[in-house]
Amino acid sequence: MENNTTATPAKVSIITIGDELLIGQVVDTNSAWMAQQLNLAGFNVHHRVAVGDTWEDIWEALDQESKRAQIILITGGLGPTADDITKPLLCQYFNGKLVRHEPTLQHLEQLFTQILKRPLTDRNRHQADVPDVCTVLSNERGTAPGMLFEKDNRVFISLPGVPHEMQGIMTKHVIPLLQERFNPGIVAHRYLLTAGIGESDLADRIQEFETALPGFIKLAYLPHYGMVRLRLTARGEKGEQHIISTLEEQFTLLQTYVQDVMVVNEDISIQAMVGKLLLERKQTMATAESCTGGYISHLITAMPGASAWFNGSVVSYSNKIKETVLNVTPETFTTTGAVSEETVTQMLTGILRVMNTDYAIAVSGIMGPDGGTHEKPVGTVWVAVGNAQHTETRKFQFRYDRMRNIEMTAINALNMLRKFIQTH
Amino acid sequence: MENNTTATPAKVSIITIGDELLIGQVVDTNSAWMAQQLNLAGFNVHHRVAVGDTWEDIWEALDQESKRAQIILITGGLGPTADDITKPLLCQYFNGKLVRHEPTLQHLEQLFTQILKRPLTDRNRHQADVPDVCTVLSNERGTAPGMLFEKDNRVFISLPGVPHEMQGIMTKHVIPLLQERFNPGIVAHRYLLTAGIGESDLADRIQEFETALPGFIKLAYLPHYGMVRLRLTARGEKGEQHIISTLEEQFTLLQTYVQDVMVVNEDISIQAMVGKLLLERKQTMATAESCTGGYISHLITAMPGASAWFNGSVVSYSNKIKETVLNVTPETFTTTGAVSEETVTQMLTGILRVMNTDYAIAVSGIMGPDGGTHEKPVGTVWVAVGNAQHTETRKFQFRYDRMRNIEMTAINALNMLRKFIQTH
Repeated sequence: MENNTTATPAKVSIITIGDELLIGQVVDTNSAWMAQQLNLAGFNVHHRVAVGDTWEDIWEALDQESKRAQIILITGGLGPTADDITKPLLCQYFNGKLVRHEPTLQHLEQLFTQILKRPLTDRNRHQADVPDVCTVLSNERGTAPGMLFEKDNRVFISLPGVPHEMQGIMTKHVIPLLQERFNPGIVAHRYLLTAGIGESDLADRIQEFETALPGFIKLAYLPHYGMVRLRLTARGEKGEQHIISTLEEQFTLLQTYVQDVMVVNEDISIQAMVGKLLLERKQTMATAESCTGGYISHLITAMPGASAWFNGSVVSYSNKIKETVLNVTPETFTTTGAVSEETVTQMLTGILRVMNTDYAIAVSGIMGPDGGTHEKPVGTVWVAVGNAQHTETRKFQFRYDRMRNIEMTAINALNMLRKFIQTH
Repeated sequence: MENNTTATPAKVSIITIGDELLIGQVVDTNSAWMAQQLNLAGFNVHHRVAVGDTWEDIWEALDQESKRAQIILITGGLGPTADDITKPLLCQYFNGKLVRHEPTLQHLEQLFTQILKRPLTDRNRHQADVPDVCTVLSNERGTAPGMLFEKDNRVFISLPGVPHEMQGIMTKHVIPLLQERFNPGIVAHRYLLTAGIGESDLADRIQEFETALPGFIKLAYLPHYGMVRLRLTARGEKGEQHIISTLEEQFTLLQTYVQDVMVVNEDISIQAMVGKLLLERKQTMATAESCTGGYISHLITAMPGASAWFNGSVVSYSNKIKETVLNVTPETFTTTGAVSEETVTQMLTGILRVMNTDYAIAVSGIMGPDGGTHEKPVGTVWVAVGNAQHTETRKFQFRYDRMRNIEMTAINALNMLRKFIQTH
């Protein structure tokens, strides 16, 4: 592709294809991931659209989006079953004809004989057929390759809908190709995470700062699980070094406004922040989970390298397990109940002993939709965090659905531990 | 609204508004949920589009989507921070002017004084301002109400972007209003879940069945974590009872094609199927998780009522915990390693004892990106399932990223236990 220097960043549209998106069977995580990667690489995604597996709708989407954007990314519609019509459509749209692509066929043969250990069927073999007017983008992780087309000074890239396959092709081929071709210039982001302050109050507090920002820096509020992340984004042309230095100055200034509510001044999650503190201190933690059912442990272990500071968890979903494994006394259940300060305090002592860690979290609550009472309605949660010397407890009252109550409990418990580690 | 009987179901477009969607900071779960509910209620979502917080883009989306659809649903852009421009835009688009809506203001005052226990700021008070040309749809769960507009025989409904608030308004107001107004007729779905067969092979196997389906029944393939769900959807006008009986006949016929690979003939997850079997048998289970780090336990406890059959889990992320809590012998780690048949077999025995359950799952593996060796590359996982009498073990070799390896392990382990329960 030719290099095409441009002052304003190239506009991108993302088209996702598939009836499953329109019936809500599948959440479209692909276009969020693509948008994120494109943004980090300096491109502006202006429009995202989802259409069904219908010839007219896909065709119209290609027409419409190529009026808006110079780069049109397409995912989905390349699977092996009969309702897939994307490839023949692309063939016709770009005036090509289907031809067998030998390197893709060889890749398929190798994949089936050496890894999947199944015979290659005709249906599989057809995945190596591509329009003769496209550039093939190899798919090391799966069967359907990516395809790049050019028309009327627009670039169209079709990618499979399987997330890890799409991601492989994006990282290896698409981002480098687009950066070379469209030269997006400088784009830089700085993030900070706040807790304990609502979006409105935060906006009031930093209104003066926001109003005084230079035009090339934008502020965004990104609320998530009761915390608010702030993002500053600076854009400029290649070589404009003052863009980055001004961003750093503004970011330092922003932090002075939110010092007391700031969790971390990087784009990392609360669990990553806990891990960072423990790694620095060469210390460890564990969790005793009742109502969160392993979700805190899952958030932690979804991060590579967590084994350096996380020993494990006891999910004591039944009260019997709270007794036998964590040594909560049976009288506690009869006097104060399983959702109480006494129970989480004893769970904390128990898990520190069982897991032999420096710190721990213990949670017990009522996540709903059933199980609430007048004194302890759905959403009542007790959290304890601490070490061998000190324990801090807090009662929360959430008012959401089950899954969101679980998430809110997990994030708040991790933030309690983060504060505890920083102050003990 | 007037009743408007129609033979073909009304078309719906969903517009989601927010820069956070275009930078990929947030995954758009709202439109998936909305699409799902609308489909179950008999509406066809034809188009979904995401635009940024930009006046022109939102305006254009309203114009475009009202050409395609009779019902246009809009979410997002109603938060309290300054970049929100949706409400003034809707005001102008529908030729209204902003007026304070007294019932909403009263609701806000009550919410802040009684539940949030914070003073109501001017910024909050503005959330009670609505265009005087809309019907207000009350939001019991939050601050920004829904708004319904009518123009050129189209219905436009604007909803807040906070998921549980949007869901509350959809369920209470939007779905009933749309059903009364558009009379979508009959729509019915039947689902079955298969495991151990790829999408291509399944398509080959049921090709004859699919070709012979009557025109008013459609078959869809919904692959998910290495399993494939099949869905039959029948549509017809109110009162056409043969639509439903034919769907049942075809669904019975479909099951004869896939008997050997069918997990369940309902639209439930694999973990719900395990729970159903245990509830029927009044039995219990537990998990011992290393590489999945509590994810299996989380999948189970995310379901209401799991405490009737799930006692808990030990996440033994460090080998020391496998020894001390689950009684894995230290020699096992030196002779066969933590990722081995011996380890998961001993973990299984340990967890059955600790949790005192009828069945259990034990898993140990290498999820990546680091930790792989030549003999045990990233993606190597051992799973054991069993009861006091019998143990079944299996080695898996996944080749995905960390999170997907965790998910694939969890789903496959649950399916192994499902089979074990059904055969023991």
